[in-house]
Amino acid sequence: MSNNSPSCDAVPGGVFAAVLTPLNPDLSVNATRMVDHCRWLLKNGCHGLAVLGTTGEANSFSVDERMAIIDALIDGGIAGGTLMPGTGCCSIPDTVALTRHAVENGASRVLMLPPFYYKGVSDDGLFAAYSEVIDRVGDSRLKIYLYHFPQMSSVPISYGLIERLLARYPDVIAGMKDSSGDYDNMAGAAKRFPGFGVLTGSDEFLAPLLRDGGTGCITAVANIASGLARDVYTAWESGDAAVMDRAQRDLNAVQKAVYAYPLFAGLKDIMARHVGDRAWRTVRPPLVALDDNQSAGLADRLAATSYTLPPLA
Amino acid sequence: MSNNSPSCDAVPGGVFAAVLTPLNPDLSVNATRMVDHCRWLLKNGCHGLAVLGTTGEANSFSVDERMAIIDALIDGGIAGGTLMPGTGCCSIPDTVALTRHAVENGASRVLMLPPFYYKGVSDDGLFAAYSEVIDRVGDSRLKIYLYHFPQMSSVPISYGLIERLLARYPDVIAGMKDSSGDYDNMAGAAKRFPGFGVLTGSDEFLAPLLRDGGTGCITAVANIASGLARDVYTAWESGDAAVMDRAQRDLNAVQKAVYAYPLFAGLKDIMARHVGDRAWRTVRPPLVALDDNQSAGLADRLAATSYTLPPLA
Repeated sequence: MSNNSPSCDAVPGGVFAAVLTPLNPDLSVNATRMVDHCRWLLKNGCHGLAVLGTTGEANSFSVDERMAIIDALIDGGIAGGTLMPGTGCCSIPDTVALTRHAVENGASRVLMLPPFYYKGVSDDGLFAAYSEVIDRVGDSRLKIYLYHFPQMSSVPISYGLIERLLARYPDVIAGMKDSSGDYDNMAGAAKRFPGFGVLTGSDEFLAPLLRDGGTGCITAVANIASGLARDVYTAWESGDAAVMDRAQRDLNAVQKAVYAYPLFAGLKDIMARHVGDRAWRTVRPPLVALDDNQSAGLADRLAATSYTLPPLA
Repeated sequence: MSNNSPSCDAVPGGVFAAVLTPLNPDLSVNATRMVDHCRWLLKNGCHGLAVLGTTGEANSFSVDERMAIIDALIDGGIAGGTLMPGTGCCSIPDTVALTRHAVENGASRVLMLPPFYYKGVSDDGLFAAYSEVIDRVGDSRLKIYLYHFPQMSSVPISYGLIERLLARYPDVIAGMKDSSGDYDNMAGAAKRFPGFGVLTGSDEFLAPLLRDGGTGCITAVANIASGLARDVYTAWESGDAAVMDRAQRDLNAVQKAVYAYPLFAGLKDIMARHVGDRAWRTVRPPLVALDDNQSAGLADRLAATSYTLPPLA
């Protein structure tokens, strides 16, 4: 890593929001609102920001749009070291272009989906795909978190693949986001690969995974409840098991309320109410915004928990 | 449709190859070889060329690379009206850009995957996605074939979605490629939606589907055996059932041989042997070229059928 690496302020783990991408009603990106949202998240519990992931509708944007989002965040004062942009596309040239753009702009930690169009591909093929990207980007600052989300990508990241990638690229392969919901898989990876940062995509596993050697979480719910996840993390750092468990229970209650409705549209709906602008509800097709009944139902369910979102300013 | 539509020579159905994309050893596109391959296919049985589909590794190329492939084919003398390029990407801007590029260059019939990253999306969301694309392209020449391939895209095209799209865009929604392998689904669609061109992605269903109201096929195996599929089609046109069934049996034998190995890499391997250049074997990761044992095994299986590929020139 270069001495002047813009990622030297990067945290090794912690609480990451899988950041929503606010849109205008015409489906274009509302970059100003995204900067505001990121600032609010950093102020209210997030160590870092996993922008342009599944929750951020990354694959619904062109590569140029994704680069412009990264630029807007950096230009808006969000430190590159706090970002972990998603850069994994179906095609190697797209993944290379996006990854290079992120690294060159100070966001050297990236979350990388495997190429996800072809199903049932071999570990040989996935190894070749990641290798090709790493070799082409050719930047010693690059740190890759593999993105294991078989329910959405349909392309799992096996332990065998991790092992081969770590052996070949020990300074690049930094960890994994495990969104499988399979606790044994994430805890097993943390145990099997020392120094490999395993972040859970499931709020409910934050406390257990920290205790089992994981390094944190990247979750959708952190868009509205990062403070609760941070409470779990802080109590873990200070060794206060009772506080840690209580915060985890509070986080679980919020998660349960939010998961009762379509997740990404639901979180945007909650932000629309919180900010007082229905435009926040906009999603790109094929996602669909909540209808008014769903919106009211979600608001009621969230209100039934003891949780309230932190103030905007 | 405009009077000067470059697609006026388009055929309404027939035999389409799901055209392979030849690569150079450095993974770049070998456009010259692709033009040669397309010419050879048109000379040997294909009515049309479904380039940039699943077999063509379309999603392993950037949008710019895909546009360049379309340009190279047109510049190489392949008539736009014979093409049916795949243009469906995960993101609406990419699908719009690619579709517009195809239409403006004379390839106004396109094969369009639904956005395929998010799984379990609603027909409302898919309808909105296709609508957004059609409205943004805004070109009366556009003819869309929906691409139903649930095993690969994980996003099926339901009859309900077809019905809604046909009602809203009767002049745009032209048909469907059904690669589900579910004969009842394809034959059912042909029966249920008169004038909607249903093309099977499965060689073995070509004869049955033509008899049941379908309009043809788009298959991977047609890259090496388009003549056999054309024999089926021609016999169907002339009403010669015995010849039709015999040609279908020959086609099935070739299909069975080819399907015994990884399909896309296997077809490239067969072309590499036929052309006498191992570079034809190159695939982009995450696909993997056949190893030498597989290559020999596939060649042996193909040789055991009575089929030989047509000469190159």
